[in-house]
Amino acid sequence: MLHCPSPRRVGTLITALPDGEVLRLFPEPAARLAAEDVYADASFPRVDKAAKPYVVINMVSSIDGKATSGGKASSIGSAMDHTIMRTLRSQADAVMIGSGTLRAEKLTLTVPENLARTRRAHGLNPQPLAVIPTTSGDLPLQENLLGYSPETLLILASSEIPKERLANLSSLARIEVVAPNETAMPTPGIDLIRALETLKERYAVDVLLVEGGPYLNHALVRMGLADELFLTLAPKILGGKRPEVATIIEGPPLLSHQETKPEVVTVHLSESELLLRYALRPRYDSS
Amino acid sequence: MLHCPSPRRVGTLITALPDGEVLRLFPEPAARLAAEDVYADASFPRVDKAAKPYVVINMVSSIDGKATSGGKASSIGSAMDHTIMRTLRSQADAVMIGSGTLRAEKLTLTVPENLARTRRAHGLNPQPLAVIPTTSGDLPLQENLLGYSPETLLILASSEIPKERLANLSSLARIEVVAPNETAMPTPGIDLIRALETLKERYAVDVLLVEGGPYLNHALVRMGLADELFLTLAPKILGGKRPEVATIIEGPPLLSHQETKPEVVTVHLSESELLLRYALRPRYDSS
Repeated sequence: MLHCPSPRRVGTLITALPDGEVLRLFPEPAARLAAEDVYADASFPRVDKAAKPYVVINMVSSIDGKATSGGKASSIGSAMDHTIMRTLRSQADAVMIGSGTLRAEKLTLTVPENLARTRRAHGLNPQPLAVIPTTSGDLPLQENLLGYSPETLLILASSEIPKERLANLSSLARIEVVAPNETAMPTPGIDLIRALETLKERYAVDVLLVEGGPYLNHALVRMGLADELFLTLAPKILGGKRPEVATIIEGPPLLSHQETKPEVVTVHLSESELLLRYALRPRYDSS
Repeated sequence: MLHCPSPRRVGTLITALPDGEVLRLFPEPAARLAAEDVYADASFPRVDKAAKPYVVINMVSSIDGKATSGGKASSIGSAMDHTIMRTLRSQADAVMIGSGTLRAEKLTLTVPENLARTRRAHGLNPQPLAVIPTTSGDLPLQENLLGYSPETLLILASSEIPKERLANLSSLARIEVVAPNETAMPTPGIDLIRALETLKERYAVDVLLVEGGPYLNHALVRMGLADELFLTLAPKILGGKRPEVATIIEGPPLLSHQETKPEVVTVHLSESELLLRYALRPRYDSS
C-alpha cells in the first residue's frame, strides 16, 4: 500500500539467493524481492463504514509450533522476520499486544524513521498507535515498552481496574475505559468487540495489527474478529514445556462454529524461513 | 525412488487446481503434479555401511502448532496428507510409532495393495516392517493396530519388561529385547541408539520412517538421530490445552548443542495445505 515492490521474475532454478533477498513462491510466478518489499503492498482493506478495524495477526513460530522460547518471542525470528514485522506495522493504524506479552519482555511497537517518513507522506501518523488492552492495569510501561510517548500509546482498560491505578497510568498513555457489553459472549479479559469498536469510532483505526500474545490471539480467533494471520515459520526446533513455551494460539479447543478455514494468500521463502500469509475469514477479498 | 513423477511445468499463474492436484512451489520452477507423485521420488539414501538407518519423521500439524486434537492425530490432516503418508511408507523399510501413539487411537502402518505391488517389483518386502519401541509392554495391538501380522510387526522391548508380558506379546509380533547402553546419554525410555542399530544390523532397515508421537520425535531430535522432517501444515486453527493437544515435539527445551538447523528441501501446496520437507542434519545430501 505504501509502495509497490517490483519483483524480478525468474524462470530458472534459483540455487542461492543473495543475502537479504526473498523468494516469493506463491502466487506464481516465483519472483525474487528485497526483504523490505515483502508485504510492502499488503493491501489491507480500509472500510469507513465497517464497525470494527480490519484485524491482522502477525506471529512467529518454530517448526515445532513454539511461539515463545524461555517465555519470550523475540529470539525466534530472524532479522528477516523483524523486517517484515516493521513492514506490517508501517501499514497499520494501530499495533496491539496483550499485557502478558508486555510483561514478558522489553519491546517496541514503533517503526523506524524511514518508514515513519513514508507514512507521513501517505497522510498517516508517523507512528502507528500502540494499543494495550488490560484487565488488571498491571503494565510495566516504563520498564518494558521502548520508544513510546503518551500521545502514541492507548490503554484499553477494563472498567474493573481501580481508579487510582488508572490515574497512575494516565500520565503515561491515553486511556479508554471499555465498559462490559452484556450482550457479548462472556469472556475473561476485556470486551474485545467493544474495544475494537472504540478503536474504530474514536481513533479512526481501519487496520489493526495484533502481535500476540497467544491468549489475545485465541480470543480474537474464537470470536471471529481476526481477518488474517501472518505466520513466520522459523527453521528451528526448540522443544520445551509450558509455561516457558507456548503455541501461537493458547486456550480452549475451538468449537466447530468458532473454527476458521484459513486460506493461503502468499508464501515466501528466505533461507529456510517460510513467510506465510493466511486469510482467516471467507469474506476476505484481496482486491 | 520407486517411480518418477513427471511434473507439468507451468509458466503462468494457477488460479485453481483440479481436485487432488498439488502445486510444487520449491524448488522452482513451479509444477503441478498428482497427489500420488508428491514425494514419490524422495531419494532417501541407502548406505550399507552406516551404523543406523536413515531416519525420517513425518508429522502433521495445524498452523497453530497442534499435532493432536482430542488426543488424536488422525483427524488433522486431509486426504492429501494421508496419500503422502502412504507414499513415504512405500519408500521405507520400516515404519515406527511410539507406544503412546498406538494407545491413543486405532491406526495402521501398512501401504495399500498397489504400493505393495510396486515395492515387490523393486525388491522390497510388500509391506514395511511395523516397529514399536516400548518400555512397559503395554501395547493394545489387537485393539488398535489394524492390518498387521506377526511377521511384519517388530516390538523393540526394554529389558526391564517382565518376561511373562513379553511372552504374551510374542504370539503377536517379533520381539527384540534392547539392552541398555551404559555409554549412551541416560534417557527415559528405550535406548534409541541400540534400537536403531538393531534395526539396521538384524532387519536390514536402511530407511526408517517415524510417525510420532511427539515424545519419540523429541528423543530422536535431541539425540541427533533424525535426518529429515516431513511436516504437513494443515490449514486449521485448533486451539486446545494439554494433555489433549500436543505439538509435534514434546519434551524439555533443546539445548544449543542439541539444536538442529533445519533446511527447506521442498515446498508443495494443495488447497492451502502446505507440505514441507526439511533436512535436519547439515550432512544431508539429496544426491
